[in-house]
Amino acid sequence: MYDVLILGAGPAGLTAAIYSARGGMKTLVLERQMTGGQIATTDLVENYPGFPDGISGFELTEHMKQQALRFGAEIREIEVVESVAPGRVHEVKTSSDTYQGRALIIATGVDPVGLGCGGEARFTGKGVSYCATCDGALYRDKVVAVVGGGNSAVEEALFLTRFARKVYIVHRRDKLRADWVLQQRVFDNTKVEILWTAQVREIRGANTVTSMYVEFTDTHEFRDVAVDGVFLYVGQRPNTEFLTRLPLRRDSAGFILTDDELATGISGVFAAGDCRANDLKQVVWAAAEGALAAQSAGRYVEDLGSVPPDGVDEEDSDACESSTA
Amino acid sequence: MYDVLILGAGPAGLTAAIYSARGGMKTLVLERQMTGGQIATTDLVENYPGFPDGISGFELTEHMKQQALRFGAEIREIEVVESVAPGRVHEVKTSSDTYQGRALIIATGVDPVGLGCGGEARFTGKGVSYCATCDGALYRDKVVAVVGGGNSAVEEALFLTRFARKVYIVHRRDKLRADWVLQQRVFDNTKVEILWTAQVREIRGANTVTSMYVEFTDTHEFRDVAVDGVFLYVGQRPNTEFLTRLPLRRDSAGFILTDDELATGISGVFAAGDCRANDLKQVVWAAAEGALAAQSAGRYVEDLGSVPPDGVDEEDSDACESSTA
Repeated sequence: MYDVLILGAGPAGLTAAIYSARGGMKTLVLERQMTGGQIATTDLVENYPGFPDGISGFELTEHMKQQALRFGAEIREIEVVESVAPGRVHEVKTSSDTYQGRALIIATGVDPVGLGCGGEARFTGKGVSYCATCDGALYRDKVVAVVGGGNSAVEEALFLTRFARKVYIVHRRDKLRADWVLQQRVFDNTKVEILWTAQVREIRGANTVTSMYVEFTDTHEFRDVAVDGVFLYVGQRPNTEFLTRLPLRRDSAGFILTDDELATGISGVFAAGDCRANDLKQVVWAAAEGALAAQSAGRYVEDLGSVPPDGVDEEDSDACESSTA
Repeated sequence: MYDVLILGAGPAGLTAAIYSARGGMKTLVLERQMTGGQIATTDLVENYPGFPDGISGFELTEHMKQQALRFGAEIREIEVVESVAPGRVHEVKTSSDTYQGRALIIATGVDPVGLGCGGEARFTGKGVSYCATCDGALYRDKVVAVVGGGNSAVEEALFLTRFARKVYIVHRRDKLRADWVLQQRVFDNTKVEILWTAQVREIRGANTVTSMYVEFTDTHEFRDVAVDGVFLYVGQRPNTEFLTRLPLRRDSAGFILTDDELATGISGVFAAGDCRANDLKQVVWAAAEGALAAQSAGRYVEDLGSVPPDGVDEEDSDACESSTA
């Protein structure tokens, strides 16, 4: 029996583990892929505070992992199959085991919804990006494209005009979905050119991106458009679909809703980081939410009463009675 | 004319500067004392994610400062006298100058309210602490005292029982101010002993704290109580008193209230970090709020319309006309 089970070993989950383990809670982190989460694949994180020359996403999350281990957290890389939340004890099942915890922190992050076109995977981190706030500053005086037509796409296109000399918006429809005020701002900005009813069919280049091959679906014409970077804003999907048996409250895009202390409304279940409905998808924000979730989970476990030592808690005692009866 | 003025160069202000400057905003940070804020005086920060062996508060905030400077932020150590918020342009006055900005981020932190007793200043960081979450793990199997009787004091005393073998609560009254449920938990915890109607008159030691000299004010008896650490929870004061001309909304303790995007309700004015009414007074949380405030301030400045290049904005143009007329 653990005090705190944490699902996900990205910045939110690892920081939750640092705070939880350092706070004296018996803590287990379960990660289905590799430790580090989405950011671990990023070559250079320039804006995580504390690293003046930047740091690779892999190195940063490896540091966080070492820090969590140092304070006694356990981390296992194993597929979570489902999570069941029956009252006082939370169970997480993997293909081979079942783990029990008094509190559960969901920090499973997001997967970007990609285009699935040729070149996308190959150039990710080398011209294909899912985050203008992260990578925009690398495109000073360059030409970039933003794919998408919603608020995120348009906001990030406007953000990119601070750096790039030209920003294409590639949108599959003939009008944007973004809020009217954002649309007005885009139409007024001479740096922005919108390619309507257009879809990126291939991202091309050598070592880095040099162009995108676009189909205009109304006329079925094709055009090779020279660009240095392509930012994809066709959506993000929170990694919470496997939690089918937890009655989580979610927003329309599937992100988990919580109160200010990151409680989900299910007793003992908290959420932190990118899988939560929040305003900033950044490492420092996710880490901060991990710290807060650990504080809230720690108080919840304290509230349950004195924590019995391992092996003598209620469930185990019942099991003993049964087996000796 | 700056795009973003930031008051305070602790983790919140410096991270706001990193994000704001890297986001292409002309950014100035004003700090009345030394860069780094309260945390800069902490010997070892163990729980800021990314530093497995910990880092000194001075070094961490120096890193953040270098990072902000690298992206083009300016930082001036100068006394802010007052801040005036008249519509589109925010003015901040120091004893010698007036600075103008389109947006203003208040990140001025807090000052702990000390006891003012002998030994407090001398042993700060050497046995006297204002943060159990930060320093509690250093007192495994030791004896510590918490001074105070409110929610913070009692919560932190309970937190300390995870590590210390004995925790005194020193309270000047004959009952606690903390919530009833917290009081019950303290009364039930055999590690906690409450010293009622007691005041710490001196904190004593050699290199580190060895005892506290306590007066019991009802009987006027004195007692020297052996302790390894003293945690002071008699209050924190947000550093916002000089902002007399900003109609900020505050909670009963004076902390600034904002919405979820850290807007204060005054057009173009945002707040971040410990001076804000939030649930976690930790470096990573303050830094995260700095990043969010910078995003919100950046969008506000974008909303004002296209940002004219330096020296040709409205105010300067007016000045030119006057001088050539």
